[in-house]
Amino acid sequence: MEASVWLIAPISALLSILVGAYLYYYVNKQSSGTKRMQEISTAIREGANAFLRREYTILAIFVLVVATLIGIFLPSPVWLSENPLRNLSLSLAYLFGAFCSALAGFFGMDVATRANAKAANAAREGLNRAFPIGFRGGAVMGLSVVGFSLLGISIVYGITGDPEIVLGFSFGASALALFAKAGGGIYTKTADISADLVGKVELGIPEDDPRNPAVIADNVGDNVGDVAGMGADLADSYIASIVAVMILGQALGRVEIPLVFAGLGIIASLIGVATVRVGKKGNPGKALNRGTYITCILLAVFTYLASIYLDIDIRIWGAMLVGLAAGIIIGITSDYFTSIDRAPAKKTAEVSKSGAALNIITGFSYGLYSVFPPLVGIGIASAIAYFLCNSIGEGYAVFGVGMAAMGMLSIVGMIVAGDAYGPIVDNAKGVAEQAGLGEEVIAVTDKLDAAGNTAKAITKGFAIGAAGLTVLALLAAYREIAQKVLGKTIGFNLMDPLVLLGAFIGIAIPPVFSAMVMLGVGKNANRMIEEIRRQFREIPGLKEGKEGVKPDYARCVDIATIGALKELLPASTLAIVVTLLVGFIGGIEALGGYLAGSIFSGLLFALLMANAGGLWDNAKKYIEAGALGGEGSEAHKAAVIGDTVGDPFKDTAGPSLNTLITVMSLVASLFAVLIAQYNLLSLLGL
Amino acid sequence: MEASVWLIAPISALLSILVGAYLYYYVNKQSSGTKRMQEISTAIREGANAFLRREYTILAIFVLVVATLIGIFLPSPVWLSENPLRNLSLSLAYLFGAFCSALAGFFGMDVATRANAKAANAAREGLNRAFPIGFRGGAVMGLSVVGFSLLGISIVYGITGDPEIVLGFSFGASALALFAKAGGGIYTKTADISADLVGKVELGIPEDDPRNPAVIADNVGDNVGDVAGMGADLADSYIASIVAVMILGQALGRVEIPLVFAGLGIIASLIGVATVRVGKKGNPGKALNRGTYITCILLAVFTYLASIYLDIDIRIWGAMLVGLAAGIIIGITSDYFTSIDRAPAKKTAEVSKSGAALNIITGFSYGLYSVFPPLVGIGIASAIAYFLCNSIGEGYAVFGVGMAAMGMLSIVGMIVAGDAYGPIVDNAKGVAEQAGLGEEVIAVTDKLDAAGNTAKAITKGFAIGAAGLTVLALLAAYREIAQKVLGKTIGFNLMDPLVLLGAFIGIAIPPVFSAMVMLGVGKNANRMIEEIRRQFREIPGLKEGKEGVKPDYARCVDIATIGALKELLPASTLAIVVTLLVGFIGGIEALGGYLAGSIFSGLLFALLMANAGGLWDNAKKYIEAGALGGEGSEAHKAAVIGDTVGDPFKDTAGPSLNTLITVMSLVASLFAVLIAQYNLLSLLGL
Ligand SMILES: [Mg+2]
Ligand SMILES: [Mg+2]
Repeated sequence: MEASVWLIAPISALLSILVGAYLYYYVNKQSSGTKRMQEISTAIREGANAFLRREYTILAIFVLVVATLIGIFLPSPVWLSENPLRNLSLSLAYLFGAFCSALAGFFGMDVATRANAKAANAAREGLNRAFPIGFRGGAVMGLSVVGFSLLGISIVYGITGDPEIVLGFSFGASALALFAKAGGGIYTKTADISADLVGKVELGIPEDDPRNPAVIADNVGDNVGDVAGMGADLADSYIASIVAVMILGQALGRVEIPLVFAGLGIIASLIGVATVRVGKKGNPGKALNRGTYITCILLAVFTYLASIYLDIDIRIWGAMLVGLAAGIIIGITSDYFTSIDRAPAKKTAEVSKSGAALNIITGFSYGLYSVFPPLVGIGIASAIAYFLCNSIGEGYAVFGVGMAAMGMLSIVGMIVAGDAYGPIVDNAKGVAEQAGLGEEVIAVTDKLDAAGNTAKAITKGFAIGAAGLTVLALLAAYREIAQKVLGKTIGFNLMDPLVLLGAFIGIAIPPVFSAMVMLGVGKNANRMIEEIRRQFREIPGLKEGKEGVKPDYARCVDIATIGALKELLPASTLAIVVTLLVGFIGGIEALGGYLAGSIFSGLLFALLMANAGGLWDNAKKYIEAGALGGEGSEAHKAAVIGDTVGDPFKDTAGPSLNTLITVMSLVASLFAVLIAQYNLLSLLGL
Repeated sequence: MEASVWLIAPISALLSILVGAYLYYYVNKQSSGTKRMQEISTAIREGANAFLRREYTILAIFVLVVATLIGIFLPSPVWLSENPLRNLSLSLAYLFGAFCSALAGFFGMDVATRANAKAANAAREGLNRAFPIGFRGGAVMGLSVVGFSLLGISIVYGITGDPEIVLGFSFGASALALFAKAGGGIYTKTADISADLVGKVELGIPEDDPRNPAVIADNVGDNVGDVAGMGADLADSYIASIVAVMILGQALGRVEIPLVFAGLGIIASLIGVATVRVGKKGNPGKALNRGTYITCILLAVFTYLASIYLDIDIRIWGAMLVGLAAGIIIGITSDYFTSIDRAPAKKTAEVSKSGAALNIITGFSYGLYSVFPPLVGIGIASAIAYFLCNSIGEGYAVFGVGMAAMGMLSIVGMIVAGDAYGPIVDNAKGVAEQAGLGEEVIAVTDKLDAAGNTAKAITKGFAIGAAGLTVLALLAAYREIAQKVLGKTIGFNLMDPLVLLGAFIGIAIPPVFSAMVMLGVGKNANRMIEEIRRQFREIPGLKEGKEGVKPDYARCVDIATIGALKELLPASTLAIVVTLLVGFIGGIEALGGYLAGSIFSGLLFALLMANAGGLWDNAKKYIEAGALGGEGSEAHKAAVIGDTVGDPFKDTAGPSLNTLITVMSLVASLFAVLIAQYNLLSLLGL
C-alpha cells in the first residue's frame, strides 16, 4: 500500500467541509418569510448563540487548565520525559480537538436556528420546496461534524505520525461532547420545567408566550440538546473509533486502513446526502431512509474496491460490514420500542387509563426489554468481527472489532444530517404556528416533523450501539498501549479479584452519574424558577403584556447555562477522578475491569433510559392524537406524568452515558503509560 | 483435623430444628384472643395454606419433571455414564433440596399466620408480653430455615461424600426459592392491585372489607412475600454458599471447614435469638439489633477457637470476618437510603409537592445512588478475602472469597428471625385494628411494627449482598468443576470475544426477567379483577353485605396463585434455556462471561429496585405521618403514585433477581461437566 494513500482522509474531509459550506450558503439565501417569522427565528438564534457563547467561555477555562495538566503530566511527567515535545504535542492536540468539536457544534447550531423559519416559509409553496431546506440545514451539521473531525485527525497524524498523540485530539473532542451532551441535557430540561411551572401552572399564561422570560431558553433547549448535543456525541464516537483502530493498526503496521475507510465513508455520505430529495407528493421519511441505504451500499462498494486495490485483507472489510449491519439493526429495534405505531407505545398508552403508576411500570418494563437486542447485537457483532479477523494473524482480531465500530460510524455524516433535520423541521412547525401561516402550511410542516421523529429514534439507538463498539475498541487500544509499556500480554480475567473489584466499581459509576445529573436538573430548575418569578415581580407591565415591555431573556439563558455546567462538573469530575484512582491504586488490570464494568452498565442504562423515555413520549402523543379519550382525559393526565419522568431519562441522563464511557476510556488510555509504571498495588508488590 | 468434626453441622442443625419446634409450641399455646380475632387469624392462615397447597401441587409436577431430567442427563447422560448411581443420587438430592425448602417455608408461614393474633392479644398486657410472641414466631422461620438447610446438606454429604451431589440439593432449594420469591411477588401485587381497584375504586367499599372476595388473598400476600419468600431466598443463598465453598474446599482437601463454620453459625444464632428480649418500656428495635450483634460476636469467637483447635489457617477465619462485616455495612447503607428518617425519603417526599413525576425521578435517582456502596462493598470484600487467603497456597484465594460469602450468611438464622418478625407484628397491628382492641393496644403494636420495618430494610440489603458474594463463589465453583474435567486452568478474560459476548447476553437477562414478571403482574391482575367482578355480579346479596353471605375467597387465592406461576414460568424458562444455550453453543468461557454479566446487572437492578421501592414507600408514609399537608394533600397523591410504581419494583422484580442469578449459576455448575465436553464451538474447532 502506498504510504500516502491515507491522504484520502484529509481530502474527503476538506470536500465535506466545502460541500457543507455550500449548503450553508444555499440555506442562508432562502427567504425567512414575514417579519414575525424573522423575529421568532432571530430570537431563537440569539438565545442559542447566547448559550453557546456562555458555554464556550466557561469551557475555554476548563479546557486550558486540562491542556496545561496534560502538557505537564502526559504521556509521562515532563521532568521524567525524554521527549518533552511529545507533552506539548499531546496538549496542543487536545486543544485542537476541543476546538474542532466546538466549531462543528457552532456551525450546526447556527444553520439549524436559521433554517427553521426558512423551511416554514418554503412550506407555503409545498413539501418539495420545504424539505430540502430542512434536510440541507441538517446536512451542514452532519458534514461539518465528519469534516472537521477527520481533518483534525489527519492534521495531527500528518504532523506527528503518532496515533497516541491523536488520542489527545479525541480526548479534547470528547470532553467538549460531554459538556455539550450532558450540560445541554440539564439545560434543556431546566428551561422546559421552569418555563412550564411558572408560566402555565402559576400564572396560567399559554405555552411559548413571549411574556415568559424563560420562553427563549426553552426554545433554544431543543436545538442545544438535539443538534449540538447529538452532533458532538456522534463526533466523539466517530473520532474515538478511528483513533482506537489507528492505535490497534499501528501495532500491525496498518495505521492507514482506518483513515482510508473513514475517507471513503465521507464520500459515500456526500453522495448519499445528494440523493435525498422528494417530489411534490413525496414521503420525507422514505427519502431519508433511501439516503441512508444508498450511503451504506456505496460505502460497502467503495471500501471493497479499496481493499482489492490497496491489498487490504477482505476479512477486514467483512468486519467493517458486520459493524455497519449491526448499527442499522440496532437502530431499527430501538425504533420498534419507541415508535408511536408499535405495540409497546400503544400498550403503555392503553394502561394509562388505570393511572400514572401503571403507565410508568409498563413503559419502564418495555424499556427493560429493549436493552436485549442491542446488547446482544453489540456482543455478536464484536465476536463475529473478532473471529473473522483472528485468522489473519496475531493482533488482527481486536483490530477487526475496531473496524466493526468504524464501519458503524463511517456513515455518521449521513446519520447526523438526518438527525439534525428533526429539530429544524420541529422548529419550523413552531414558527409556522406562532406566525399563523394557516392550516395547510402547518400540515406540510407536520409531515416533515413526523419523518424527523423516526430519524431521531433510529439515531439514538445507532449512537448507543456505535458508542458500545467504540468503547470496546478503546478498551483494546488501552490494553495495547499498556502491553507496549509492560512488554507482556495482558488480559482482564474476571477471576482476578482486582479485575472483578474494578468491574464492580465501574458498574456503579453510570448509575451514580445519572442520578447526579437528573437531580441536578431539579436544583437548576429551582434557581431558574426564582429568576422568572423575580422578573414578573420587578419588571413593571410584564405580566399584563404592556406594549414594548420585554422580559430579560438572556438572563434566563445565562442562569440555565451556568447552572447546567455547575451541576455537571461534580458528576464529570467524579467519573474522571474515580477512573484515575482505580488506575493508580489497582493498576492496569483493575482499570481494565473498571472500564468493562462501566461499558456494561453504561450501555444498559443508556438504552433503558433513551428507549423508555422515547416510549413514554410517544404513548402521550398517541393519546393526544385522539386515542383513549384524547387530550384532557384521565389517560392523558397519566401519560403526561410518564412523559415528564421520561424527559430527564431520554434527554439528560440517557444520552450522556455514551459520552461518559467514551471519556472514561480515553482517560484510561491517555494515562495507561503512567499507570503501568506507577500504581500503588504493584509498588506494594501485590 | 478429625474427619468426623464436620458432624458439628448436622448436630447444630438438629438442635436448631428442636429449638424451632419448642418455639413453635410456645407461640402456639398462647391465647389468640377474642372470637373475632381468631376468625381473622384463621382466615389469613387458611388463605396462606390455600396458596401454599396450590403452589406446592403445581411445583411438585415441575420438580418431578426436572428430577427426571437430572436423573437422565446429569452429571453426564445415563447411557454414557460409568456410574449411573451418581445420576440417581443427584436427582434424589435435587428432590430432597426442594422438599427441605418447602418444609421450612411451610413451618414458617404456619407459625407466622398463627402468631399475629396471639401477639395482638398479648399486646393488651403490654409490649414486653407481645414482643416475644412476635419475635419467637419469626425465630421459628429463621431456625427452621437454617436447620433444615444444613441438615439436608449434611445428610446428602454424609451419604455420598461428594460436594457435587450436594449441588443438586442446592439446585432443588433454589428452584423452589425462585417460585416462592418471584411467584410470591407476582401473587402479592396481583392481589393488592385487584382488591384495591375493584373494591376501593369501582365500588367504593373500604380497604380490608370482608365483602371483597380478594381481601383474604391480599392479606395472605404479605405473608407469602415477606415470610415464605424472604426465607426461601436466604435459604437458597445460604445453601449455595456452603456448597460452593465445599466444592472449592474439596480441591484443597478442606471440605469440612464450611460445614464446621456453618454449624458454629447456627449455635451463635441460637444464643443470639435467646438474648432478644425487652423490658416493659424497652425498645424492640434495639433488642433486635442487640441480638444480631451478639450473634456476630459469638460467631467470630467460636470460629476463632475452632480455627485454633482444628488447625485452620487464621487467614481463612479472617476472610469469613470480612464477609460478615461487609454484610452488616451493606445492610446499614440500604437502611439509610430507604429509612423514613433520612434525607433520601424526606427529599423525595418534599418534591412530591410539585407532582408525581418529580417524586418518581427523585426516588429513582436515589435508588441509582444506593447501588454504589453495596457494589463497591461486595467488590472490596471479595478482593480482601482473595488476597488474604492467596498467600496460604494455590487455590486458597477463591476459597477465601467463598468463605467471605459464608461469613455473611452464617448468621442467617438470626437475620431471618428478625425479618419474619416484621410481617407478624404488621399483621398483629391489622388484627388489633380490625378487632377494635382500642388505641392503647394499637399503639403497642405500632411500636412493634416500626422495629419490624427497619429490620426488613436491613435484611433486604443484606440478602442482596449475601447473594452477590455467593454467586461469585458459585462462579469460582463452576470454574473449578470445569477445570477438573478439562484438566487445565480456565479464566474469564474479557478480551476473549466469547467471554465478552457471554457477558453482553448475561447482562441483558436480569432486565428482561424483571420486565416479564412486572408485566406479568398486570396480566394476572386483569384475570383476578374479572373474577372479583363476577362474584359481585353473581353472588346475591354480596354487594349489599347481607348477613351470612360470603364471597368465595379461595377461588380468588386460587386464580392469583395459578396466574402467578403461569406468568413466572416463561421468565424462568427463558433464563434457564438461555443459560444452557450459551453454554452448549459458546462453551465454558462464554458461559463464565455470561454468569458474570448476569451477576453484574442482577445485583445492580436488585439493589436499585429494592431501594427505590422502599424509598417511595417511606416517602409516602412520611407524608401520611402528617408532613407536607398529610394524607389527602397533592403531595400525598403524588407520593401514592410513586409508592405504587415501587410496589412491583421492591416486591416482585427486585427481590427475585438474587434468586434468579443463583439459579443460573447453579444450572451452569450442574451442566459444567457436560458443557466442557460437548459444545458447538469447540466441536467446530473454533
Ligand atoms: Mg417532552
Ligand atoms: Mg405498598
